[in-house]
Amino acid sequence: MADRILLAHGSGGKLMHDLIKKSFVSTLSNPILEKLDDSAVFDLNGRLAFTTDSYVVSPIFFPGGDIGKLAVCGTVNDLSMTGATPLYLSLSFIIEEGLLLADLEKIVNSISEAATEAGVKIVTGDTKVVNKGSADRLFINTSGVGVVPHGIDISGANARPGDKVIVSGTLGDHGMAVLSQREGIRFQVPVPSDCAPLNKMVAEMLATGAEIHCLRDPTRGGLATTLNEFAQQSRVGIRIDELSIPVNPAVLGACELLGFDPLYVANEGKLVAVVAPDDADRVLAAMRKNHYGQKAVIIGEVVGEHPRRVVLKTRLGASRIVDVLVGELLPRIC
Amino acid sequence: MADRILLAHGSGGKLMHDLIKKSFVSTLSNPILEKLDDSAVFDLNGRLAFTTDSYVVSPIFFPGGDIGKLAVCGTVNDLSMTGATPLYLSLSFIIEEGLLLADLEKIVNSISEAATEAGVKIVTGDTKVVNKGSADRLFINTSGVGVVPHGIDISGANARPGDKVIVSGTLGDHGMAVLSQREGIRFQVPVPSDCAPLNKMVAEMLATGAEIHCLRDPTRGGLATTLNEFAQQSRVGIRIDELSIPVNPAVLGACELLGFDPLYVANEGKLVAVVAPDDADRVLAAMRKNHYGQKAVIIGEVVGEHPRRVVLKTRLGASRIVDVLVGELLPRIC
Repeated sequence: MADRILLAHGSGGKLMHDLIKKSFVSTLSNPILEKLDDSAVFDLNGRLAFTTDSYVVSPIFFPGGDIGKLAVCGTVNDLSMTGATPLYLSLSFIIEEGLLLADLEKIVNSISEAATEAGVKIVTGDTKVVNKGSADRLFINTSGVGVVPHGIDISGANARPGDKVIVSGTLGDHGMAVLSQREGIRFQVPVPSDCAPLNKMVAEMLATGAEIHCLRDPTRGGLATTLNEFAQQSRVGIRIDELSIPVNPAVLGACELLGFDPLYVANEGKLVAVVAPDDADRVLAAMRKNHYGQKAVIIGEVVGEHPRRVVLKTRLGASRIVDVLVGELLPRIC
Repeated sequence: MADRILLAHGSGGKLMHDLIKKSFVSTLSNPILEKLDDSAVFDLNGRLAFTTDSYVVSPIFFPGGDIGKLAVCGTVNDLSMTGATPLYLSLSFIIEEGLLLADLEKIVNSISEAATEAGVKIVTGDTKVVNKGSADRLFINTSGVGVVPHGIDISGANARPGDKVIVSGTLGDHGMAVLSQREGIRFQVPVPSDCAPLNKMVAEMLATGAEIHCLRDPTRGGLATTLNEFAQQSRVGIRIDELSIPVNPAVLGACELLGFDPLYVANEGKLVAVVAPDDADRVLAAMRKNHYGQKAVIIGEVVGEHPRRVVLKTRLGASRIVDVLVGELLPRIC
């Protein structure tokens, strides 16, 4: 049993201290974390951004990533979507008794790599272990803090008629990657998750000085849900053009086969930006220079008509309302 | 099924939006939370404290509290133990499909009440739903941020020989309350959990101007583990006197019956303070004026001998080493 997590690893006692020191602190090492006090303490000034997400993705390893990489990227991206520079993350594990220590170590290594790429530090954490059958292998919560640079005001409520709607790349990759792994489906062309930290691309977009009104990463509920949130928060209409929406052909094929609409499938390394019309080309150029935005395109615009509604111009030239997701498409996708 | 949580409540779509608006935002209402962007944004200046905890207590309702109250108090207390003033919390739910909506609402109400008592705001959140059997009813993560006042430097590494060790009240109440509920044990005198936010008492302790070196809430692993952490972080010895350690008679009886040592049983509304010797009486007086510190007492002192070891003088006058908890005493106590 020495190669598996025991209930005693969550006891607060000796085994937990050893696990934290040997498996977590040594890999995620930084002076704030190493203090091991009840809270991390550090200096920070200005407008603070603060966010949280729990990750329950199943399976915990999938093509293109794992729950650890996802937990860092997801929270880094949530901070970035308010224009904040992500700085510090917390890391909290809920582990099912019996998890292989080797699996936990792989995931901690992914967390470390993703945090290094994003330039954030894990500064505080928590470990709970629940008895076998009371959780499914591993759940992770990351919360994050960052600083919003002076003069930045990005919100889902800031879209204005005339603004252009940009997506940073192909849609649905994460959802299809997880689903294929979960169900044992093999695609002819493998579909890896797009899971990635977008903070550097956002910094490059902001550095253009463009008027960026809204940013959001279309995770659960997909692009359709994100655009509906913008339309409702900003009380505007949004029109998008189906022909302009980038979807990886393998993802499109899988969606058609399985009866999914890629507009509703989750992404973990994509963003939607709503940008003042005169600045759209400048933002697009900045995005395309970044590895994670090479396939960025304008997919539509904000309109004064049909407030709170998203309307899609289909391939055939017809218009249809794109509603928020009703019911559940893919549980435990993130 | 309309009275229970469905998988679709975690979909990112319509049901989730409705649940968040109707059940969470309306109860926990404040202008930052109501913006519903990816991160909460607010002004904050100075030294920041940041902490996280996931709560997996079983059962989710217990005498003296529930998982919601616990999730607020635990994180408020972790912030307080670095001397920080807790300000903002995040709130993340992992819900098992089938949880009664009425139970979730009770818990959200507890969260609201505890946050109001502690004077903190819930500013950002997340909701995940997992299929039946993949979690045990409800897990909650709260993370928190606060500001450490100028001149405060409290850490488990700051204990010095000569310092006095104070506990704020009786030990083991939370652990025994949860255990009795879980196992259906009835005590003659009911034992409620001590679960409480300690931030106001800590503020009153700091207001005395006393030299407070260490603060910690002895949760998992109990007093014994907290004192061992101080001894190791500060490289000092600690001596405590068994006769001076306050334990509720009903808890002592239950511990004797069940074979537990109250030194290792979890508390959720108690703190241990290590204070400069000349300031101990002043701190004690401030604690006793507060509702949650009425039974505060000095239980021992920091010594230069036996560094990294905690030694207990027993009722019979003998000395024994009090080690950190080895193995697991009570899983899922918090």
